[in-house]
Amino acid sequence: MNPAARKDLTIVAPATGNQMAAIGVVRLSGSQAFEITEQVFSKKIAHQPGYTIHFGKIKDQNRVVDEVLVSIFKSPNSYTGDDIVEISCHGSPYIVQEIVNLLVKQGAALAEPGEFTMRAFLNGKMDLSQAEAVADLIASESYAGHALAMQQMRGGISKLIEQLRNQLLHFSAMLELELDFSTEDVEFANRGDLLILLNKISKVIKQLIGSFALGNAIKKGIPVCIVGRPNAGKSTLLNALLNDDRAIVSEIAGTTRDSIEDHFVFNGISFRLIDTAGLRETNDTIESIGIERSYVKMHEADYIIYLFDVNELSNEVVDADVQAIKNRVGGNKNIILVANKIDQITESEKSKEINSSFIQISAKELQGIEQVFETIAFEVNEQMTQKNEIISNVRHLEALNQCDLALNQTIVQLNNQISSDLLAFHIREALKYMALITGEVTNDEVLGHIFGKFCIGK
Amino acid sequence: MNPAARKDLTIVAPATGNQMAAIGVVRLSGSQAFEITEQVFSKKIAHQPGYTIHFGKIKDQNRVVDEVLVSIFKSPNSYTGDDIVEISCHGSPYIVQEIVNLLVKQGAALAEPGEFTMRAFLNGKMDLSQAEAVADLIASESYAGHALAMQQMRGGISKLIEQLRNQLLHFSAMLELELDFSTEDVEFANRGDLLILLNKISKVIKQLIGSFALGNAIKKGIPVCIVGRPNAGKSTLLNALLNDDRAIVSEIAGTTRDSIEDHFVFNGISFRLIDTAGLRETNDTIESIGIERSYVKMHEADYIIYLFDVNELSNEVVDADVQAIKNRVGGNKNIILVANKIDQITESEKSKEINSSFIQISAKELQGIEQVFETIAFEVNEQMTQKNEIISNVRHLEALNQCDLALNQTIVQLNNQISSDLLAFHIREALKYMALITGEVTNDEVLGHIFGKFCIGK
Repeated sequence: MNPAARKDLTIVAPATGNQMAAIGVVRLSGSQAFEITEQVFSKKIAHQPGYTIHFGKIKDQNRVVDEVLVSIFKSPNSYTGDDIVEISCHGSPYIVQEIVNLLVKQGAALAEPGEFTMRAFLNGKMDLSQAEAVADLIASESYAGHALAMQQMRGGISKLIEQLRNQLLHFSAMLELELDFSTEDVEFANRGDLLILLNKISKVIKQLIGSFALGNAIKKGIPVCIVGRPNAGKSTLLNALLNDDRAIVSEIAGTTRDSIEDHFVFNGISFRLIDTAGLRETNDTIESIGIERSYVKMHEADYIIYLFDVNELSNEVVDADVQAIKNRVGGNKNIILVANKIDQITESEKSKEINSSFIQISAKELQGIEQVFETIAFEVNEQMTQKNEIISNVRHLEALNQCDLALNQTIVQLNNQISSDLLAFHIREALKYMALITGEVTNDEVLGHIFGKFCIGK
Repeated sequence: MNPAARKDLTIVAPATGNQMAAIGVVRLSGSQAFEITEQVFSKKIAHQPGYTIHFGKIKDQNRVVDEVLVSIFKSPNSYTGDDIVEISCHGSPYIVQEIVNLLVKQGAALAEPGEFTMRAFLNGKMDLSQAEAVADLIASESYAGHALAMQQMRGGISKLIEQLRNQLLHFSAMLELELDFSTEDVEFANRGDLLILLNKISKVIKQLIGSFALGNAIKKGIPVCIVGRPNAGKSTLLNALLNDDRAIVSEIAGTTRDSIEDHFVFNGISFRLIDTAGLRETNDTIESIGIERSYVKMHEADYIIYLFDVNELSNEVVDADVQAIKNRVGGNKNIILVANKIDQITESEKSKEINSSFIQISAKELQGIEQVFETIAFEVNEQMTQKNEIISNVRHLEALNQCDLALNQTIVQLNNQISSDLLAFHIREALKYMALITGEVTNDEVLGHIFGKFCIGK
């Protein structure tokens, strides 16, 4: 995508999905939007006020393609900042495509993915972080993921970064002024105040960096690994949670070899569930590769569900198993102990005391399963409310990490009483990385990368 | 669905598909549409003029669910005739569902399939035949299918039926008047003129009935059966046409046993392709069942493509095969003779004269395939332009058949000089069936059946 070369084009794309539905929407944006539409629409619209709707026919010569509602928005009061036309037609993919084809014939260019939102950014309707949040918002599938994207789209992070950046810009300007008067040895920028500000910014940046793990997990689904001995019922639990026969279940220990992943949403939180091969000593080569992978997955997971057959294992064996897992993946992982097959406990075994820290379930009978995820969902919600701003975008993380480095260097150099010009250089570095997030500094390659991941028509 | 019980409800539904897209639309219709929307929208809309758009936020208490565009339409100037609100939000299925849920919480009722269009019908915005065309239009996937639905939605058939019905109504009224004066032996309705009219109507009705086969084939896809001896390349041709590995292809004769069906669109016409088991004598029970089914499919098809390996069969064998097919399925079927594997013809065989009526193709090399369907598409287009009005709806066909019966009986009785009251009865019957098409006469069961097949939100 070459934004400069395309900025004078009037772009067109379907804004609704390519499936049969009540309504389909085709969207045009650009200086020729009204003129092109009038070539195929039965009414004149260019002189109508913005934010009005017009009923009429889309025609290809004398053939009526559809009866439609045409909404118009006039520059700069539109999503993109350009003139915009939205054609609401009958929701047949054939009709939507016909209308797009007609408009292309009249001179509109097929929009590239994300090009409408890129124009909104280039026309100053939103900053880059907000534009990125539009894609996250459309992809959101849970309460928490939606809340995160909405906070970002409404400018939460942008405002925070902008505020800090403006304060730092003030010092930067003062330092530049010092350089102009360098022969006179004046100090416009108070070094003490600057140090306080740098430490304040550094603290906020570090907090934002620290929020990424949570933000990313919320956006992509909290990774939860289900582990345990063979035949503990791991695949049965996965299938019960997904309400699907996703994993093959059998009486034969070692049925699951590949790890299986899938999403489900519970209490507003999206989870990425990972079923793994049962943990045991084995001579089967494929199975032992599977078991090694189980450990890799445990490393990646935020939560580990250790599932066991309550009729098979004693409390002591469970403790030993959990200790063995901790030895492999580290002691600070969240491990949730879940006793399965409680529906099969015989009268005699009921007397046996089950450790009260175990969550008791029957994956087969769908008993107690919610409790496992209620615990996790509660913790995630707690973490979300404790943090003010949460980032979830890898590009932001990278910029913040670079910014953090630059800030740290500046602080060290400031303590070392370096010259104004070197100090000014380090501050400009920090400012640059902050500007990358909001898009005050950017380039076509970065834009192409960001908007290329959007869906067509947005 | 009970239209009477639901007519005071304000209904809500997503109007766009349940997949990620740039835009999602939620639609409300009913007397409370503005009031309910205002409970969750950041602006007042009830006093705004119709056909205007309003930018604002959808909120659940203090939580912003989305920034949206709200379009309003005021009764009676709307699709349904009710007050309508369309909320255009970010196209995340999660957000669309959240907005629907919020509106239901505020008192809206989830719309049943087709309920918006049913309201349009009940409020007199369109007749029943037009309402049915809305569903056909949304489902249209080819130029011809679209043209058919559009003609019907724009009232083509309704107008024709209404015109004829009004003329017959005039005679019916005259006859009723005669009955009022029955003791005086007057004749207000001229029997000669009535006979002329009945014959005229009967002719039009018969033409419409005759158009159904074409209309239905255009709507559902022209059924084309591919037949031939084993290994003629039938499955290769099907896969080439569908651009897919739909049918299993192998060197082994008799690979295809089940008949395989799929759609493709060529030159604006939708085709329903049917691949069949190769025709041969066989001892394999499953294969012979498949061959019997091939004949059933040939009966159902409008066109039969007889495919043969040009390197294997002589012109005489081909003629014999085709004659055998005609003996089974009747002589008036359209059979298109297609010589396959022309890419494999050796130099020596090239001298052999290939019958000029054979279309020569190579399914494997994608040569000449278009020509097969160009022939059919040309014929279908010819037929379409020859007919003025084409019906494609089974319900219309049934009503027209009943109407035709009633008209025929009326004509017979009129020739038999029956009494005015019997004549009036027969004419009322014919009028009733005409009224069924446009929906002047209907009932909840019929409406439920028609609109129940619509998609949600239309």
